[in-house]
Amino acid sequence: MNHLLTAIEVAAMIAFALSGVFEAARKRLDAVGVCVVAGLAAFGGGTLRDVLLDRRPFFWVENAVWLWGLLALCATVMLFMRTQHVAPTERAMQWPDALGLGLFTASGTQIALQAGSPALVAVLMGVITATFGGVLRDIVCNEIPALLRDHRPYAVCAFVGAWVVVALPWLGAEPWQAMLAGGLVSALLRIAALWTGYTLPRWSAGP
Amino acid sequence: MNHLLTAIEVAAMIAFALSGVFEAARKRLDAVGVCVVAGLAAFGGGTLRDVLLDRRPFFWVENAVWLWGLLALCATVMLFMRTQHVAPTERAMQWPDALGLGLFTASGTQIALQAGSPALVAVLMGVITATFGGVLRDIVCNEIPALLRDHRPYAVCAFVGAWVVVALPWLGAEPWQAMLAGGLVSALLRIAALWTGYTLPRWSAGP
Amino acid sequence: MNHLLTAIEVAAMIAFALSGVFEAARKRLDAVGVCVVAGLAAFGGGTLRDVLLDRRPFFWVENAVWLWGLLALCATVMLFMRTQHVAPTERAMQWPDALGLGLFTASGTQIALQAGSPALVAVLMGVITATFGGVLRDIVCNEIPALLRDHRPYAVCAFVGAWVVVALPWLGAEPWQAMLAGGLVSALLRIAALWTGYTLPRWSAGP
Repeated sequence: MNHLLTAIEVAAMIAFALSGVFEAARKRLDAVGVCVVAGLAAFGGGTLRDVLLDRRPFFWVENAVWLWGLLALCATVMLFMRTQHVAPTERAMQWPDALGLGLFTASGTQIALQAGSPALVAVLMGVITATFGGVLRDIVCNEIPALLRDHRPYAVCAFVGAWVVVALPWLGAEPWQAMLAGGLVSALLRIAALWTGYTLPRWSAGP
Repeated sequence: MNHLLTAIEVAAMIAFALSGVFEAARKRLDAVGVCVVAGLAAFGGGTLRDVLLDRRPFFWVENAVWLWGLLALCATVMLFMRTQHVAPTERAMQWPDALGLGLFTASGTQIALQAGSPALVAVLMGVITATFGGVLRDIVCNEIPALLRDHRPYAVCAFVGAWVVVALPWLGAEPWQAMLAGGLVSALLRIAALWTGYTLPRWSAGP
Repeated sequence: MNHLLTAIEVAAMIAFALSGVFEAARKRLDAVGVCVVAGLAAFGGGTLRDVLLDRRPFFWVENAVWLWGLLALCATVMLFMRTQHVAPTERAMQWPDALGLGLFTASGTQIALQAGSPALVAVLMGVITATFGGVLRDIVCNEIPALLRDHRPYAVCAFVGAWVVVALPWLGAEPWQAMLAGGLVSALLRIAALWTGYTLPRWSAGP
């Protein structure tokens, strides 16, 4: 169980770090900027969740090896893109972003449940874990966060997936099954939303 | 005493949530955005204060019912505005904002005093509690925070009110009297500032 | 040793507070805005470090005298600039900024080492302590953080200096020697970068 949780966290961090590298490359930041943006995207959501739940030490303080891994990942991807003359498009960023969204929703919700949070709080922690890294990434790149800018569902996908993680055990499922199912639902919903171009109705008062 | 404190916190949260709903509606965000902005405005200041004072668990983690209440409030207000064709103006946002400012100043300062903070730290906590929710609301709506943008006194109102909360007990008043008086002073100062259009002198060096 | 650490922290806070006052004056904020920006610049980095390392109470909660000192410093500088008709230039801001960068790198890294962090985490804490106050100052003044905007090395200077603080004791140096050397390296690197106008190569994929 805990091994699965760690594996999901690591996969989510790698996915978000990739999205950060692509975003920073599109903005033509320098090498330091690429590492900063990748780090914020990868560690931002999990760190805010840990501050809110008061979980210490942070996983990246306890296991400094992840920080080295992040630096190595950034260097590898930068080197690869430079030698292969690959320029990342906006699409290229959305795939790891959707994957990371699903994975972090699953791990964030499960960790909050294990810490004894009530259902809605656990859901909220899942949503925060899944979205805050991306919000930081966008703010630092001087973009209005995608969460608020485009009207395509983003937080809603995490919200629905987090409820799956919370609710399936009530129906008799094992926590690890609920986690996998919730993560899958989040990621697939996000991918479906990108695919179909569905947008939430803007809310407006009056005519 | 503690019941009064809770009542003030709840009233302040409702006031700031309303200001968030109105602001989000003016920016024509979707339903998710409205709830996010209302939540940041309502819980932002208190949560930062609790992180700084190391008070755990957060009140919205302990009492998840407030989160449900927030969702219900947002849904009700949205439904009401839609069916009644009411479009919120900037004025409409300023009333709950001023009210919330006063209430959060009172509760934030008092909570810091109970946690044993020295006077100036307690005042600062009151100001942070009262202003940070609004700052988050404005940043997320892609506005420069009102705190810094317009030169009408805002943080100053909270600052004065917080000193009232701290100082009245020195003159023999009961804490709950000081709290009510401080909150009232903050809110009235802010309303008076809006009413008269008074602006702080810009500070500039030289001619 | 601990006296040196405190002295370095205080010097760094004064340097960053000055950079905040100058920046706020250049933006023609009012007196409240000047104090807010100076306070964020002076206390922002250290407070984030303390939240991440879970060190309580914060030094400015424990020693409220620093808050009074900050207010007095702001008032004095404002009064001086107004009576002397001195208008701060962008250059004027960069000297205390570079000095504060070096001092906070030294103290932040050393504090993280004393808290038992592994080398890379201590380095990261030094960089966060040194840069976050300036980032807050820039965000609040509605500038893209200098850290990301100009391509002159900034975080890199702190990064190199922090490694000096971590590595010198491995070579047999006393911690206080390592601290002074690391701080000096950071500040001098930053000043050299400003002097020569050296910029990091922008990273770009393909032709």
